[in-house]
Amino acid sequence: MTESVIQYLKDNRDQHLEALCNFLRIPSVSTDPLHRTDIRKAAQFVSDYLTEIGFDKVEIQDTPGHPLVYAEWLNAGPDAPTVLVYGHYDVQPADPLELWETEPFEPTLRNNRLYARGSSDDKGQVFMHLAVFKAFMKTDGQLPINVKVCIEGEEEIGSEHLHQQLANKKEQFKADFAVISDSGMVANDQPTILYGLKGFTGVEFTVNGPDNDLHSGLYGGAVRNPLMALAHILASMKDQNEVIQIQHFYDDVEPLTEQERTLMAQVPIEDYSVTTGVTSTVSEQSYTAAEHTMGRPTLEVNGMFGGYQGEGTKTIIPASATAKITCRLVPGQDPNKIQDYLVDHIKQHLPSGVTVSIKREPISAKAYKVDPDHPLIKQAADSYSKAFGRDVVYVRMGGSIPVVESIDHIFNIPVVLLGFGTPDDRLHSPNESFPLSSFDQGMVTLVDFYASLG
Amino acid sequence: MTESVIQYLKDNRDQHLEALCNFLRIPSVSTDPLHRTDIRKAAQFVSDYLTEIGFDKVEIQDTPGHPLVYAEWLNAGPDAPTVLVYGHYDVQPADPLELWETEPFEPTLRNNRLYARGSSDDKGQVFMHLAVFKAFMKTDGQLPINVKVCIEGEEEIGSEHLHQQLANKKEQFKADFAVISDSGMVANDQPTILYGLKGFTGVEFTVNGPDNDLHSGLYGGAVRNPLMALAHILASMKDQNEVIQIQHFYDDVEPLTEQERTLMAQVPIEDYSVTTGVTSTVSEQSYTAAEHTMGRPTLEVNGMFGGYQGEGTKTIIPASATAKITCRLVPGQDPNKIQDYLVDHIKQHLPSGVTVSIKREPISAKAYKVDPDHPLIKQAADSYSKAFGRDVVYVRMGGSIPVVESIDHIFNIPVVLLGFGTPDDRLHSPNESFPLSSFDQGMVTLVDFYASLG
Repeated sequence: MTESVIQYLKDNRDQHLEALCNFLRIPSVSTDPLHRTDIRKAAQFVSDYLTEIGFDKVEIQDTPGHPLVYAEWLNAGPDAPTVLVYGHYDVQPADPLELWETEPFEPTLRNNRLYARGSSDDKGQVFMHLAVFKAFMKTDGQLPINVKVCIEGEEEIGSEHLHQQLANKKEQFKADFAVISDSGMVANDQPTILYGLKGFTGVEFTVNGPDNDLHSGLYGGAVRNPLMALAHILASMKDQNEVIQIQHFYDDVEPLTEQERTLMAQVPIEDYSVTTGVTSTVSEQSYTAAEHTMGRPTLEVNGMFGGYQGEGTKTIIPASATAKITCRLVPGQDPNKIQDYLVDHIKQHLPSGVTVSIKREPISAKAYKVDPDHPLIKQAADSYSKAFGRDVVYVRMGGSIPVVESIDHIFNIPVVLLGFGTPDDRLHSPNESFPLSSFDQGMVTLVDFYASLG
Repeated sequence: MTESVIQYLKDNRDQHLEALCNFLRIPSVSTDPLHRTDIRKAAQFVSDYLTEIGFDKVEIQDTPGHPLVYAEWLNAGPDAPTVLVYGHYDVQPADPLELWETEPFEPTLRNNRLYARGSSDDKGQVFMHLAVFKAFMKTDGQLPINVKVCIEGEEEIGSEHLHQQLANKKEQFKADFAVISDSGMVANDQPTILYGLKGFTGVEFTVNGPDNDLHSGLYGGAVRNPLMALAHILASMKDQNEVIQIQHFYDDVEPLTEQERTLMAQVPIEDYSVTTGVTSTVSEQSYTAAEHTMGRPTLEVNGMFGGYQGEGTKTIIPASATAKITCRLVPGQDPNKIQDYLVDHIKQHLPSGVTVSIKREPISAKAYKVDPDHPLIKQAADSYSKAFGRDVVYVRMGGSIPVVESIDHIFNIPVVLLGFGTPDDRLHSPNESFPLSSFDQGMVTLVDFYASLG
């Protein structure tokens, strides 16, 4: 059965690529109000395509921000599972334009890659699902499972209204599991299942000293320096072995199982000297870089400032000093509790002679993890592996994807993160591209996966 | 003999104040090229005044920057000592103009103070010497000692060309001791002898990590964070008891003698909550704030920056982090050695996974101190005390005055710092003023002091 669907995709490859190019030509930059019309055009493109395939109830749903496209095809019968397919039609701005080798919104094929803003993130991957559904309909006249589609237009600006929309229309969007293709493989053509994401919280704090910047000659020796106080507080948060020193921070951490450590050891090691320029990595004592980035919590200073920042010297004791800190959390950790621990730590380590004001990061999220042995994950891995001809690696990611947290929170269903991007795709940067091998094998993966669940 | 001189000053007070006002009306702002002509006018005012009094060899000496005024009167005979009187005719800019209650360059008398930019720093204090010399000449037909005058025009912009000028014309400027009135009293009408200044050195260093800012979710746990590394290095430099932890830092410090600790205990204590808004002070363990600010070395972070500084959150591991550090040194400490110790400390405390680049502060200076028991200091204190009717306090200052370092270095002569400013003078700020009591009693002090040396 899948063979004819796959053959259809082969036979119609040029036509599908041309349709994708039309999608990519719409500069649906969500952050820029000048592109409001383009945003609506892109939503219209998706809804027209779904209507043409034969989806029912195709809607462009308005939100207080950009609209999202909903569609459903629920004719696979009551015994067949229902999948919620999520993706986004909005893209990042293309600036700086002068660094693009070809126009960002005029898709170009070269080196077996399709170059355009959105080719990988996420129009290219959204379109793969659309083309696969079309192939099923054209070949079999039906889809193997029930499908709900949710393609939003605000992912690149923080999915501000998505959570509310899903919560308001819980009944409409409800499904047995979700599939998202908005991530990547750890290496070209290396099938990768992402089974966990980290949670998130943070604080910003300002150490306040004198009313104004003071002459360091006249007041040095009498007045506590807020910059030095800040340095002491920050240094007390993490030791040089990258072990976080915040009391209770690790209390609820779900430990890495031996199985996971084995899975993580199989992930091809990133060449950090190439990707970051750093020649020696550092990780939490007793953990590898793979284990720490994927499966252990982190605390990072994201920004810090105070006093004189210009050229040369200005001999002052500054009035204040500020640091921005965020943590990535793992399953078991409660972001609100962690935020409390951070606040307690800062207050307890505040030296005399200064005060502190603390802003709590308003966006917090729990970590997400699905059991890598979950039958859906095993099936996705099997399809992925067959299509690419290589064993799958299982990874957890240090980042967060807001929609996953929302789906987990609202529907409490497994999320299959089936991403086909590659490390060379230059997401958010000039010359974004997507490999045609990902396009072709990715669609084969999806055909096999959906068919296997029918 | 001094009585008639003092009487002359009393009788001609209005005339002297009017002459000072003419001096203050010239907006000789040294940092602003638009005031080039005013700079020259102010130099001309000083040289005209000295000529009129009867000084010889009055010169406006050009430098690569603003000119300085030199004059001499050497007819007191070969047995009389020669004093070098230093001051400056340039002033700080008057901005922000809207905060001045009366025009900065239209001197106004109110509350027994003369309001104008430069009234205290330093035209008012320079003029007191000029008026005193005039009074001696008008009364006695001569000065009690030999006098060389050096009034520069670049003090407010760092005395950039002064050192070279003094070194080039060493023979011309050479004297037995120097007198400078460009500082202040610790309280209104509280005679204050400044007998020591701190030295100075510093470094700026940048901790370099990845080539670019990295996604803290993807790289947290593998890549050392330069901001956290910077915090660790800074925190290692000074403990929470304000004791500097740089190896060898205190090795050559000349300890405070019991005599000095007694002198420092007599200095009226600054109300830091009023002057700085800080309600609790901190000082080096075992030393008071007075002892630490005046007589113990300090290390201060003057500025620090790295990563994201805008509103909200940006989850990055930044590429680099920078700190600016300066130290104030006491007698015995060699600024070059201290700079080496700082560099060594930074390198030794650099964690793995990052590199550091260090800029050495180009301006370093040794501390300056004259023995408070030196006969010239005792004589100055005696004159000061008689004129103001109160015992003198002896202070050392945490700041540096470049000209003192130059005079010490080139001529190796004692410098008598006889300042008549007060804490309320608002130097460098809107509504600068100078109390008439300082003007009157200060001139009496100078008459008595010069006469006593004749």
